[in-house]
Amino acid sequence: MDIGIYGLGVMGSNLALNIADNGFNVYVYNRDNEKTEVFLANNSHKKISGVSDIETFIRSLKKPRKIILMVSNSAVDEVIEQILPFVEKFDIIIDGGNSYYKDTIRREQELSSRDIYFVGLGISGGERGARFGASFMYGGNKKAYELIEPILNKIAAKTNEGDVCSAYLGKDGVGHYVKMVHNGIEYADMQLIGEAYFFMKRAFNLDNLRIAEVFDKWSEGELSSYLIEITSKILKYKENNEYLIDKILDVANQKGTGKWVSIEALHLNVPANLIFESMFARFLSILKHERVIASDILKMDVDFVEFDLSDWILDLYYSLLVAKILAYSQGFMILKNASANYLWDLNLGKISLIWREGCIIKSVFLDKIKLAYDKNPHLINLLFDDYFLDIIKNHHKSLRRIVSKASEIGIPLPAFYASLSFLDSYSTNYLPANLIQAQRDFFGAHSFERIDSNRGEFFHSSWE
Amino acid sequence: MDIGIYGLGVMGSNLALNIADNGFNVYVYNRDNEKTEVFLANNSHKKISGVSDIETFIRSLKKPRKIILMVSNSAVDEVIEQILPFVEKFDIIIDGGNSYYKDTIRREQELSSRDIYFVGLGISGGERGARFGASFMYGGNKKAYELIEPILNKIAAKTNEGDVCSAYLGKDGVGHYVKMVHNGIEYADMQLIGEAYFFMKRAFNLDNLRIAEVFDKWSEGELSSYLIEITSKILKYKENNEYLIDKILDVANQKGTGKWVSIEALHLNVPANLIFESMFARFLSILKHERVIASDILKMDVDFVEFDLSDWILDLYYSLLVAKILAYSQGFMILKNASANYLWDLNLGKISLIWREGCIIKSVFLDKIKLAYDKNPHLINLLFDDYFLDIIKNHHKSLRRIVSKASEIGIPLPAFYASLSFLDSYSTNYLPANLIQAQRDFFGAHSFERIDSNRGEFFHSSWE
Repeated sequence: MDIGIYGLGVMGSNLALNIADNGFNVYVYNRDNEKTEVFLANNSHKKISGVSDIETFIRSLKKPRKIILMVSNSAVDEVIEQILPFVEKFDIIIDGGNSYYKDTIRREQELSSRDIYFVGLGISGGERGARFGASFMYGGNKKAYELIEPILNKIAAKTNEGDVCSAYLGKDGVGHYVKMVHNGIEYADMQLIGEAYFFMKRAFNLDNLRIAEVFDKWSEGELSSYLIEITSKILKYKENNEYLIDKILDVANQKGTGKWVSIEALHLNVPANLIFESMFARFLSILKHERVIASDILKMDVDFVEFDLSDWILDLYYSLLVAKILAYSQGFMILKNASANYLWDLNLGKISLIWREGCIIKSVFLDKIKLAYDKNPHLINLLFDDYFLDIIKNHHKSLRRIVSKASEIGIPLPAFYASLSFLDSYSTNYLPANLIQAQRDFFGAHSFERIDSNRGEFFHSSWE
Repeated sequence: MDIGIYGLGVMGSNLALNIADNGFNVYVYNRDNEKTEVFLANNSHKKISGVSDIETFIRSLKKPRKIILMVSNSAVDEVIEQILPFVEKFDIIIDGGNSYYKDTIRREQELSSRDIYFVGLGISGGERGARFGASFMYGGNKKAYELIEPILNKIAAKTNEGDVCSAYLGKDGVGHYVKMVHNGIEYADMQLIGEAYFFMKRAFNLDNLRIAEVFDKWSEGELSSYLIEITSKILKYKENNEYLIDKILDVANQKGTGKWVSIEALHLNVPANLIFESMFARFLSILKHERVIASDILKMDVDFVEFDLSDWILDLYYSLLVAKILAYSQGFMILKNASANYLWDLNLGKISLIWREGCIIKSVFLDKIKLAYDKNPHLINLLFDDYFLDIIKNHHKSLRRIVSKASEIGIPLPAFYASLSFLDSYSTNYLPANLIQAQRDFFGAHSFERIDSNRGEFFHSSWE
């Protein structure tokens, strides 16, 4: 048995099949044995077998043992406790779930004292990725990496150029950290697409099919991505002769990673407002009951004007492109800051490469990010790369027109708004922070720096 | 000795003088004895004395002893350790600093096991408030409150109607919690005023004196507040014949409370985007070096148009008013959620009353909030109160015009943008969250609710 999979949920099952298809002997285990039996009955595969006894499960694995945990993050500590009596020195326990990176660091420290390797492996790609090729973000011991690299390389997605979407990214909880930031970007990506859909629906009154055609068209260019692709499929999909999208309640939930990445951005002082607005859009969606009341009693008359549709759809396209650039640049700002702050020496180009295929945010766009970091690994900000710079300079006016129009006619586009305010703030050399500093000095003697003095020299004024 | 003050920084010194002026005997102590001596030398007051020995300091206080700690939050645990050997049953230790409410809860629990009362007392008002009347937000044991209430009531600010800006708000860390939310609102308030200043400066090219006059005018109406008042003073203030505001570096720092309230909003799912954008504006201000580069290489040509100044300034006024309403409603959303989530039974009307005078966000505006909660203590949202509703309905178009204009001409107004996207999202009964849910179901089988089915019933589709 080359490798063990603990946990046969959607991700664990598909990962087991993927590994087996690639020629490795996979041993599976699930706490609820019935699930194991159902899985084995439905998937007869000569490379897969399973067992109901935890000791046999662990002991039968080839040494050093490789065990991938595919369980919910709340169960990880308990599962480690359960398997610990049976693992030995130099065995490798891999957490393939969405664990919080600080938990991963703690677990790695605890287990390394017994010479057991603990690895935080970020996996993105959903069900399909797990089955046919996902993105793997490895954080942990490098020696252990060499032992499982052959498996990961086989089961990972590949780019058209043959590059493997899996890599050793560093020690500690780096794998889960990068996965967490990936999810933050994914939140923003989904929200921006949602707003583009909403704008077409509300401002132009386009029907689902027409909106899907617009997304199909957009799929041909710079915005080509998995998320745009599935959006079009979703908009065309009917059940009982009705568009399913119109039957879905507008209440979007979220799991932990969105909050974790937000707290991390706060901790590192990164103004990642697109990621936050995407979280807030979900919080607001949850307030359905209040919104229904508010839509009635806060009814605001707004001026509706005629559109030249084709011009506006082009503007919307470029708005989405510019906003997407800003969302990704915020994600990479978090990574860059984390790398410096936690001494992780992250390779940002490599990270964009392993997101290129397999994962939820896969897109041609990520090639451009890779190229940018290949050209200049010390790039201060993605926006400073010529490719992105040109798009912004040529098309920021589209974003301005969409924000301006949406604000006039009352269509909420929180992530588009956030992208423009970020862009304009970031490119303003003198912000009104001088007044904030003056106020803080006035009421709390917090002191301020002066433009005609050295940085780090602080002054206080009496003000009256 | 009626009361002891431990810590003679700006706040501690002024509080000591305030208490002494109100007829109580104050005993002061500072870890660095020189500071005590300097304070006593500069402030000879027959009601104040000091000592360099911690045991004498504590032992000399009238029982049950009342000791107010005015130290930085990182020092609180250490100071408690230091005084613990000398306090007795039923003595009251009051933390008057900005401690994290979870620390306060922990400390209260630890000390209550020894029958010593520990109180988290939020104090707002800066130097002047501490000296002549501040806002006091008390959280902790109610019996202990009765013992220090006479002192707090005397040293607190009073409204014109004679109401005292101090109150018992609840147990646990409620006092520090409410102070934390107060600071979040304060961040938003300052940022909105900063953006209004910036818009006048950048869009209208008004000079400092003219902008100060506009703020003076605005001080007469609904926006009358301490922060607007000091903004005008700041803009008029000269040093060496030059406006000081123009010499201040546009880099604004922040202490911990802004981050704490942000994390709390995330924890409680409150979409408080104005508070976050105010944080992010400070994060962006810190990136001065990058902004200077960006302002050069991201130089974007924008269309400038002529303004009819008086119309636009009226729009800016109403924008600030509408955005301020939204900022406060977000702050009160956090309090309402916290009250339900932590079983605190917060009195929101009372909280607005004690912020009415004394504190940094004091304003006539807070009267209206108090009235709204007096009329309906179970108000779902401040925006649903007639007073605020009328303002929004009558003036949302001003906010739309300012956001629309700023987005066209490239002036970053992140908090104004956030206020409008919040308003439009909150008052939209059907948001594009249906697409987000469809995407999540498509790639991760996360399931969704339907509009033609009961809440809580979840569905999954094959989509292809």
